[in-house]
Amino acid sequence: MLKPHGKSFDSDFRANFADLIAWRRDVRRFTAQAVDETLVQECLQLANMSPSVGLSQPWRFIELADPVRRQAIVNTFEKCNAEALADYHGDDKTNYAGLKLEGLREAPVQLAVFADTTTTKGKGVGRKTMPEMTAYSVVTAIHTFWLAARARGLGVGWVSILEPEAVAKACETPENLQLIAYLCVGWPQQEMLTPELETAGWETRTDLSAFYKKL
Amino acid sequence: MLKPHGKSFDSDFRANFADLIAWRRDVRRFTAQAVDETLVQECLQLANMSPSVGLSQPWRFIELADPVRRQAIVNTFEKCNAEALADYHGDDKTNYAGLKLEGLREAPVQLAVFADTTTTKGKGVGRKTMPEMTAYSVVTAIHTFWLAARARGLGVGWVSILEPEAVAKACETPENLQLIAYLCVGWPQQEMLTPELETAGWETRTDLSAFYKKL
Repeated sequence: MLKPHGKSFDSDFRANFADLIAWRRDVRRFTAQAVDETLVQECLQLANMSPSVGLSQPWRFIELADPVRRQAIVNTFEKCNAEALADYHGDDKTNYAGLKLEGLREAPVQLAVFADTTTTKGKGVGRKTMPEMTAYSVVTAIHTFWLAARARGLGVGWVSILEPEAVAKACETPENLQLIAYLCVGWPQQEMLTPELETAGWETRTDLSAFYKKL
Repeated sequence: MLKPHGKSFDSDFRANFADLIAWRRDVRRFTAQAVDETLVQECLQLANMSPSVGLSQPWRFIELADPVRRQAIVNTFEKCNAEALADYHGDDKTNYAGLKLEGLREAPVQLAVFADTTTTKGKGVGRKTMPEMTAYSVVTAIHTFWLAARARGLGVGWVSILEPEAVAKACETPENLQLIAYLCVGWPQQEMLTPELETAGWETRTDLSAFYKKL
Protein backbone atom coordinates (compact mmCIF):
# COMPACT_ATOMS: atom_id res chain seq x y z
CA MET A 1 0.00 0.00 0.00
CA LEU A 2 1.61 3.23 -1.19
CA LYS A 3 1.30 6.13 1.25
CA PRO A 4 3.52 8.90 -0.10
CA HIS A 5 4.65 11.41 2.49
CA GLY A 6 2.54 9.72 5.15
CA LYS A 7 2.88 10.49 8.84
CA SER A 8 2.58 7.77 11.49
CA PHE A 9 1.86 8.27 15.16
CA ASP A 10 3.29 5.85 17.73
CA SER A 11 1.73 4.28 20.80
CA ASP A 12 3.38 6.86 23.08
CA PHE A 13 1.64 9.65 21.19
CA ARG A 14 -1.67 7.80 21.25
CA ALA A 15 -1.38 7.31 25.03
CA ASN A 16 -0.63 11.00 25.51
CA PHE A 17 -3.49 11.93 23.19
CA ALA A 18 -5.81 9.81 25.34
CA ASP A 19 -4.50 11.72 28.37
CA LEU A 20 -5.19 15.00 26.59
CA ILE A 21 -8.80 13.97 26.04
CA ALA A 22 -9.09 12.77 29.64
CA TRP A 23 -7.58 15.93 31.16
CA ARG A 24 -9.53 18.40 29.02
CA ARG A 25 -12.05 20.17 31.20
CA ASP A 26 -14.56 22.97 30.87
CA VAL A 27 -12.70 25.47 33.06
CA ARG A 28 -14.49 28.19 35.02
CA ARG A 29 -11.86 28.98 37.68
CA PHE A 30 -8.85 30.89 36.38
CA THR A 31 -5.80 32.41 38.06
CA ALA A 32 -5.04 36.11 37.56
CA GLN A 33 -1.95 35.26 35.48
CA ALA A 34 -1.86 36.79 31.99
CA VAL A 35 -1.69 34.61 28.89
CA ASP A 36 1.02 35.20 26.29
CA GLU A 37 -0.64 36.24 23.04
CA THR A 38 1.65 33.85 21.14
CA LEU A 39 0.05 30.85 22.85
CA VAL A 40 -3.44 31.95 21.84
CA GLN A 41 -2.32 32.53 18.26
CA GLU A 42 -0.72 29.06 18.12
CA CYS A 43 -4.03 27.51 19.17
CA LEU A 44 -5.95 29.61 16.65
CA GLN A 45 -3.53 28.63 13.87
CA LEU A 46 -4.27 24.96 14.59
CA ALA A 47 -8.01 25.65 14.80
CA ASN A 48 -7.79 27.16 11.32
CA MET A 49 -6.72 23.73 10.00
CA SER A 50 -9.86 22.01 11.31
CA PRO A 51 -12.27 20.18 9.03
CA SER A 52 -14.76 22.45 7.30
CA VAL A 53 -17.54 21.65 4.87
CA GLY A 54 -16.32 22.25 1.32
CA LEU A 55 -13.11 23.79 2.73
CA SER A 56 -15.26 26.81 3.60
CA GLN A 57 -13.41 27.74 6.83
CA PRO A 58 -16.54 29.52 8.11
CA TRP A 59 -15.08 30.27 11.59
CA ARG A 60 -14.81 33.91 12.62
CA PHE A 61 -12.90 34.56 15.85
CA ILE A 62 -13.36 37.83 17.70
CA GLU A 63 -11.12 38.29 20.71
CA LEU A 64 -12.94 40.53 23.14
CA ALA A 65 -10.58 42.68 25.20
CA ASP A 66 -12.57 45.89 25.60
CA PRO A 67 -14.00 46.13 29.16
CA VAL A 68 -17.29 47.68 28.04
CA ARG A 69 -17.93 44.89 25.55
CA ARG A 70 -16.95 42.31 28.15
CA GLN A 71 -19.40 43.80 30.64
CA ALA A 72 -22.19 43.29 28.09
CA ILE A 73 -21.34 39.57 28.09
CA VAL A 74 -21.46 39.45 31.90
CA ASN A 75 -24.83 41.22 31.79
CA THR A 76 -26.42 38.77 29.36
CA PHE A 77 -25.02 35.82 31.33
CA GLU A 78 -26.46 37.14 34.59
CA LYS A 79 -29.88 37.70 33.02
CA CYS A 80 -29.98 34.26 31.40
CA ASN A 81 -28.60 32.48 34.44
CA ALA A 82 -31.26 34.04 36.68
CA GLU A 83 -33.93 32.89 34.21
CA ALA A 84 -32.43 29.39 34.13
CA LEU A 85 -32.38 29.23 37.94
CA ALA A 86 -36.09 30.07 38.00
CA ASP A 87 -36.79 26.88 36.00
CA TYR A 88 -35.43 24.61 38.72
CA HIS A 89 -37.14 23.54 41.93
CA GLY A 90 -36.21 21.86 45.20
CA ASP A 91 -32.74 20.34 45.45
CA ASP A 92 -32.01 21.10 41.79
CA LYS A 93 -32.59 24.81 42.45
CA THR A 94 -30.27 24.81 45.46
CA ASN A 95 -27.63 22.88 43.54
CA TYR A 96 -27.92 25.03 40.42
CA ALA A 97 -27.51 28.20 42.48
CA GLY A 98 -24.23 26.79 43.83
CA LEU A 99 -22.72 25.91 40.44
CA LYS A 100 -19.98 28.09 38.98
CA LEU A 101 -20.73 27.93 35.28
CA GLU A 102 -18.34 30.54 33.83
CA GLY A 103 -15.20 32.56 34.45
CA LEU A 104 -16.29 35.71 32.62
CA ARG A 105 -14.87 38.11 35.20
CA GLU A 106 -11.55 36.30 35.62
CA ALA A 107 -10.54 34.86 32.25
CA PRO A 108 -7.75 37.01 30.77
CA VAL A 109 -8.56 35.97 27.19
CA GLN A 110 -12.09 35.79 25.81
CA LEU A 111 -13.18 34.79 22.33
CA ALA A 112 -16.55 35.05 20.65
CA VAL A 113 -16.69 32.50 17.85
CA PHE A 114 -19.13 32.91 14.98
CA ALA A 115 -20.08 31.02 11.82
CA ASP A 116 -20.34 32.94 8.57
CA THR A 117 -23.57 31.36 7.33
CA THR A 118 -23.42 33.09 3.94
CA THR A 119 -19.81 32.49 3.00
CA THR A 120 -19.32 31.57 -0.66
CA LYS A 121 -16.04 29.84 0.15
CA GLY A 122 -16.42 26.17 -0.75
CA LYS A 123 -19.14 27.08 -3.28
CA GLY A 124 -21.84 25.48 -1.16
CA VAL A 125 -20.49 21.91 -1.32
CA GLY A 126 -22.08 19.72 1.36
CA ARG A 127 -24.39 22.46 2.66
CA LYS A 128 -27.46 22.05 0.43
CA THR A 129 -29.37 19.43 2.42
CA MET A 130 -27.53 20.10 5.69
CA PRO A 131 -26.91 23.87 5.96
CA GLU A 132 -26.07 23.33 9.62
CA MET A 133 -22.71 21.94 8.43
CA THR A 134 -21.41 25.52 8.52
CA ALA A 135 -22.02 25.75 12.27
CA TYR A 136 -20.64 22.23 12.78
CA SER A 137 -17.41 23.18 10.99
CA VAL A 138 -16.95 26.01 13.48
CA VAL A 139 -17.48 23.58 16.36
CA THR A 140 -14.61 21.39 15.11
CA ALA A 141 -12.39 24.48 15.09
CA ILE A 142 -13.43 25.27 18.67
CA HIS A 143 -12.63 21.73 19.77
CA THR A 144 -9.22 21.87 18.07
CA PHE A 145 -8.54 25.17 19.86
CA TRP A 146 -9.62 23.62 23.16
CA LEU A 147 -7.29 20.62 22.82
CA ALA A 148 -4.36 22.75 21.62
CA ALA A 149 -4.90 25.06 24.60
CA ARG A 150 -4.97 22.14 27.06
CA ALA A 151 -1.75 20.79 25.55
CA ARG A 152 -0.21 24.13 26.61
CA GLY A 153 -1.71 23.96 30.11
CA LEU A 154 -4.38 26.53 29.28
CA GLY A 155 -7.97 26.07 30.34
CA VAL A 156 -10.99 26.83 28.17
CA GLY A 157 -14.59 27.27 29.26
CA TRP A 158 -17.49 27.37 26.78
CA VAL A 159 -20.28 29.67 27.98
CA SER A 160 -23.72 29.11 26.39
CA ILE A 161 -25.90 30.71 29.07
CA LEU A 162 -26.35 33.97 27.19
CA GLU A 163 -28.40 35.60 24.47
CA PRO A 164 -26.62 35.15 21.13
CA GLU A 165 -28.02 38.52 19.98
CA ALA A 166 -26.43 40.29 22.96
CA VAL A 167 -23.02 38.79 22.12
CA ALA A 168 -23.44 39.73 18.46
CA LYS A 169 -24.28 43.29 19.52
CA ALA A 170 -21.23 43.49 21.80
CA CYS A 171 -19.10 42.30 18.88
CA GLU A 172 -20.87 44.52 16.31
CA THR A 173 -21.16 41.57 13.94
CA PRO A 174 -23.43 41.58 10.87
CA GLU A 175 -26.51 39.35 10.70
CA ASN A 176 -24.87 36.63 8.65
CA LEU A 177 -22.59 35.78 11.57
CA GLN A 178 -24.19 33.20 13.86
CA LEU A 179 -22.81 32.90 17.39
CA ILE A 180 -21.48 29.41 18.06
CA ALA A 181 -19.51 29.86 21.28
CA TYR A 182 -18.22 32.31 23.81
CA LEU A 183 -14.91 31.04 25.19
CA CYS A 184 -13.11 31.98 28.39
CA VAL A 185 -9.39 31.18 28.23
CA GLY A 186 -6.75 31.34 30.93
CA TRP A 187 -4.61 29.39 33.40
CA PRO A 188 -6.77 27.00 35.44
CA GLN A 189 -6.59 27.12 39.21
CA GLN A 190 -6.68 23.32 39.23
CA GLU A 191 -6.26 20.55 36.70
CA MET A 192 -8.82 17.83 37.12
CA LEU A 193 -9.71 14.44 35.68
CA THR A 194 -13.31 14.77 36.85
CA PRO A 195 -15.76 17.23 35.28
CA GLU A 196 -16.77 19.99 37.68
CA LEU A 197 -20.47 19.13 37.21
CA GLU A 198 -19.69 15.61 38.41
CA THR A 199 -17.71 16.84 41.43
CA ALA A 200 -20.63 19.16 42.25
CA GLY A 201 -23.05 16.22 42.19
CA TRP A 202 -25.07 17.63 39.27
CA GLU A 203 -24.51 14.83 36.75
CA THR A 204 -22.42 11.70 36.30
CA ARG A 205 -20.65 10.19 33.32
CA THR A 206 -22.16 7.28 31.44
CA ASP A 207 -20.25 4.50 29.64
CA LEU A 208 -20.12 4.32 25.87
CA SER A 209 -22.20 1.13 25.78
CA ALA A 210 -25.34 3.19 26.44
CA PHE A 211 -24.70 5.31 23.34
CA TYR A 212 -23.57 2.78 20.75
CA LYS A 213 -25.27 0.07 18.78
CA LYS A 214 -24.64 -1.86 15.58
CA LEU A 215 -27.27 -2.59 12.96
CA MET B 1 -0.12 27.67 42.09
CA LEU B 2 -1.44 24.34 43.33
CA LYS B 3 -2.38 21.90 40.59
CA PRO B 4 -3.09 18.59 42.29
CA HIS B 5 -2.84 15.56 40.03
CA GLY B 6 -2.14 17.79 37.00
CA LYS B 7 -0.91 16.41 33.69
CA SER B 8 1.61 18.32 31.56
CA PHE B 9 2.29 17.84 27.88
CA ASP B 10 5.76 18.48 26.48
CA SER B 11 6.89 20.20 23.30
CA ASP B 12 7.35 16.84 21.53
CA PHE B 13 3.71 16.01 22.13
CA ARG B 14 2.61 19.46 21.01
CA ALA B 15 4.61 19.12 17.78
CA ASN B 16 3.08 15.71 17.11
CA PHE B 17 -0.39 17.06 17.94
CA ALA B 18 0.18 19.83 15.36
CA ASP B 19 1.13 17.09 12.86
CA LEU B 20 -2.06 15.21 13.73
CA ILE B 21 -4.12 18.29 12.93
CA ALA B 22 -2.13 18.90 9.74
CA TRP B 23 -2.42 15.28 8.51
CA ARG B 24 -6.12 14.85 9.29
CA ARG B 25 -8.04 14.72 6.06
CA ASP B 26 -11.59 14.09 4.94
CA VAL B 27 -10.97 10.71 3.34
CA ARG B 28 -13.07 9.38 0.46
CA ARG B 29 -10.67 6.77 -1.00
CA PHE B 30 -10.30 3.66 1.09
CA THR B 31 -8.46 0.37 0.59
CA ALA B 32 -10.38 -2.91 0.79
CA GLN B 33 -8.59 -3.84 4.04
CA ALA B 34 -10.86 -4.59 7.00
CA VAL B 35 -10.67 -2.52 10.20
CA ASP B 36 -10.22 -4.26 13.55
CA GLU B 37 -13.30 -3.60 15.66
CA THR B 38 -11.04 -2.86 18.65
CA LEU B 39 -9.62 0.20 16.90
CA VAL B 40 -13.08 1.62 16.26
CA GLN B 41 -14.10 1.01 19.86
CA GLU B 42 -10.95 2.76 21.13
CA CYS B 43 -11.85 5.83 19.08
CA LEU B 44 -15.45 5.73 20.28
CA GLN B 45 -14.31 5.42 23.91
CA LEU B 46 -12.30 8.62 23.50
CA ALA B 47 -15.19 10.32 21.72
CA ASN B 48 -17.37 9.52 24.72
CA MET B 49 -15.06 11.75 26.85
CA SER B 50 -15.63 14.80 24.66
CA PRO B 51 -17.08 18.02 26.02
CA SER B 52 -20.87 18.03 26.25
CA VAL B 53 -23.25 20.70 27.44
CA GLY B 54 -24.19 20.01 31.07
CA LEU B 55 -22.39 16.65 30.85
CA SER B 56 -25.34 15.47 28.77
CA GLN B 57 -23.36 13.15 26.45
CA PRO B 58 -26.07 13.48 23.79
CA TRP B 59 -24.14 11.51 21.10
CA ARG B 60 -25.75 8.35 19.76
CA PHE B 61 -23.55 6.21 17.51
CA ILE B 62 -25.12 3.69 15.16
CA GLU B 63 -22.65 1.53 13.28
CA LEU B 64 -24.29 0.53 10.03
CA ALA B 65 -23.15 -2.88 8.78
CA ASP B 66 -26.31 -4.24 7.17
CA PRO B 67 -25.99 -4.07 3.33
CA VAL B 68 -29.65 -3.12 2.81
CA ARG B 69 -29.40 -0.19 5.22
CA ARG B 70 -26.10 0.85 3.64
CA GLN B 71 -27.69 0.82 0.18
CA ALA B 72 -30.31 3.28 1.44
CA ILE B 73 -27.48 5.67 2.31
CA VAL B 74 -25.95 5.27 -1.16
CA ASN B 75 -29.38 5.98 -2.66
CA THR B 76 -29.96 9.19 -0.74
CA PHE B 77 -26.41 10.36 -1.53
CA GLU B 78 -26.90 9.74 -5.26
CA LYS B 79 -30.20 11.62 -5.28
CA CYS B 80 -28.82 14.60 -3.35
CA ASN B 81 -25.58 14.70 -5.29
CA ALA B 82 -27.46 14.79 -8.63
CA GLU B 83 -29.57 17.65 -7.28
CA ALA B 84 -26.45 19.48 -6.10
CA LEU B 85 -24.79 19.04 -9.49
CA ALA B 86 -27.83 20.63 -11.16
CA ASP B 87 -27.18 23.83 -9.17
CA TYR B 88 -23.76 24.39 -10.75
CA HIS B 89 -23.01 25.81 -14.19
CA GLY B 90 -20.03 26.08 -16.53
CA ASP B 91 -16.63 25.10 -15.15
CA ASP B 92 -18.06 24.60 -11.66
CA LYS B 93 -20.45 21.98 -13.02
CA THR B 94 -17.66 20.11 -14.82
CA ASN B 95 -15.43 20.28 -11.76
CA TYR B 96 -18.19 19.24 -9.34
CA ALA B 97 -19.01 16.22 -11.51
CA GLY B 98 -15.36 15.12 -11.22
CA LEU B 99 -15.15 15.39 -7.43
CA LYS B 100 -15.18 12.24 -5.33
CA LEU B 101 -17.08 13.33 -2.26
CA GLU B 102 -17.62 10.07 -0.36
CA GLY B 103 -16.45 6.49 0.05
CA LEU B 104 -19.84 4.95 0.82
CA ARG B 105 -19.28 1.85 -1.30
CA GLU B 106 -15.74 1.18 -0.08
CA ALA B 107 -15.53 2.17 3.58
CA PRO B 108 -15.52 -0.98 5.72
CA VAL B 109 -16.89 0.84 8.78
CA GLN B 110 -19.74 3.33 8.63
CA LEU B 111 -21.28 5.27 11.49
CA ALA B 112 -24.42 7.37 11.62
CA VAL B 113 -24.08 9.85 14.47
CA PHE B 114 -27.16 11.42 16.03
CA ALA B 115 -27.91 13.93 18.79
CA ASP B 116 -30.58 13.07 21.34
CA THR B 117 -32.32 16.43 21.40
CA THR B 118 -34.62 15.50 24.28
CA THR B 119 -32.16 13.91 26.68
CA THR B 120 -32.73 14.85 30.31
CA LYS B 121 -29.11 14.08 31.15
CA GLY B 122 -27.50 17.30 32.34
CA LYS B 123 -30.91 18.62 33.41
CA GLY B 124 -30.93 21.20 30.63
CA VAL B 125 -27.91 23.18 31.84
CA GLY B 126 -26.59 25.47 29.09
CA ARG B 127 -29.32 24.56 26.61
CA LYS B 128 -32.07 27.07 27.46
CA THR B 129 -30.99 29.98 25.25
CA MET B 130 -28.83 27.87 22.92
CA PRO B 131 -30.60 24.52 22.41
CA GLU B 132 -28.22 23.89 19.49
CA MET B 133 -25.55 23.10 22.12
CA THR B 134 -26.81 19.52 22.04
CA ALA B 135 -25.86 19.15 18.38
CA TYR B 136 -22.57 20.99 18.97
CA SER B 137 -21.65 18.54 21.74
CA VAL B 138 -22.06 15.70 19.26
CA VAL B 139 -19.79 17.49 16.80
CA THR B 140 -17.00 17.65 19.40
CA ALA B 141 -17.36 13.87 19.85
CA ILE B 142 -17.12 13.37 16.09
CA HIS B 143 -13.97 15.49 15.93
CA THR B 144 -12.41 13.55 18.82
CA PHE B 145 -13.23 10.31 16.99
CA TRP B 146 -11.71 11.69 13.79
CA LEU B 147 -8.42 12.66 15.47
CA ALA B 148 -8.21 9.40 17.42
CA ALA B 149 -8.77 7.49 14.17
CA ARG B 150 -6.06 9.45 12.35
CA ALA B 151 -3.64 8.76 15.20
CA ARG B 152 -4.19 5.07 14.37
CA GLY B 153 -3.70 5.59 10.63
CA LEU B 154 -7.43 5.35 9.93
CA GLY B 155 -9.19 7.75 7.61
CA VAL B 156 -12.58 9.31 8.25
CA GLY B 157 -14.89 11.00 5.74
CA TRP B 158 -17.92 13.05 6.82
CA VAL B 159 -20.76 12.77 4.28
CA SER B 160 -23.41 15.52 4.43
CA ILE B 161 -24.80 15.22 0.90
CA LEU B 162 -27.84 13.22 1.93
CA GLU B 163 -31.34 13.59 3.35
CA PRO B 164 -31.19 13.33 7.15
CA GLU B 165 -34.67 11.73 7.13
CA ALA B 166 -33.45 8.96 4.82
CA VAL B 167 -30.56 8.18 7.16
CA ALA B 168 -32.87 8.22 10.17
CA LYS B 169 -35.18 5.81 8.36
CA ALA B 170 -32.30 3.46 7.49
CA CYS B 171 -31.30 3.51 11.15
CA GLU B 172 -34.89 3.23 12.46
CA THR B 173 -34.25 6.05 14.90
CA PRO B 174 -37.01 7.88 16.78
CA GLU B 175 -37.85 11.51 16.02
CA ASN B 176 -35.88 12.93 18.93
CA LEU B 177 -32.64 11.78 17.31
CA GLN B 178 -31.24 14.43 14.97
CA LEU B 179 -28.70 13.32 12.39
CA ILE B 180 -25.40 15.13 12.81
CA ALA B 181 -23.04 13.13 10.61
CA TYR B 182 -22.63 10.06 8.49
CA LEU B 183 -19.03 8.84 8.75
CA CYS B 184 -17.08 6.55 6.44
CA VAL B 185 -14.12 4.93 8.21
CA GLY B 186 -11.32 2.80 6.79
CA TRP B 187 -7.69 2.67 5.70
CA PRO B 188 -6.89 5.55 3.36
CA GLN B 189 -5.30 4.81 -0.01
CA GLN B 190 -3.05 7.83 0.49
CA GLU B 191 -2.10 10.09 3.35
CA MET B 192 -2.04 13.71 2.33
CA LEU B 193 -1.16 17.10 3.78
CA THR B 194 -3.35 18.86 1.23
CA PRO B 195 -7.17 18.65 1.30
CA GLU B 196 -8.57 16.78 -1.68
CA LEU B 197 -10.77 19.77 -2.61
CA GLU B 198 -7.61 21.87 -2.87
CA THR B 199 -5.79 19.27 -4.99
CA ALA B 200 -8.87 19.11 -7.24
CA GLY B 201 -8.77 22.89 -7.72
CA TRP B 202 -12.18 23.44 -6.09
CA GLU B 203 -11.12 25.65 -3.19
CA THR B 204 -7.93 26.88 -1.49
CA ARG B 205 -7.01 27.40 2.13
CA THR B 206 -7.02 30.88 3.65
CA ASP B 207 -4.74 32.14 6.44
CA LEU B 208 -6.05 32.74 9.93
CA SER B 209 -5.56 36.52 9.64
CA ALA B 210 -8.70 36.72 7.49
CA PHE B 211 -10.81 35.11 10.25
CA TYR B 212 -9.51 36.77 13.40
CA LYS B 213 -9.82 40.22 14.91
CA LYS B 214 -9.49 41.82 18.32
CA LEU B 215 -11.90 44.36 19.73
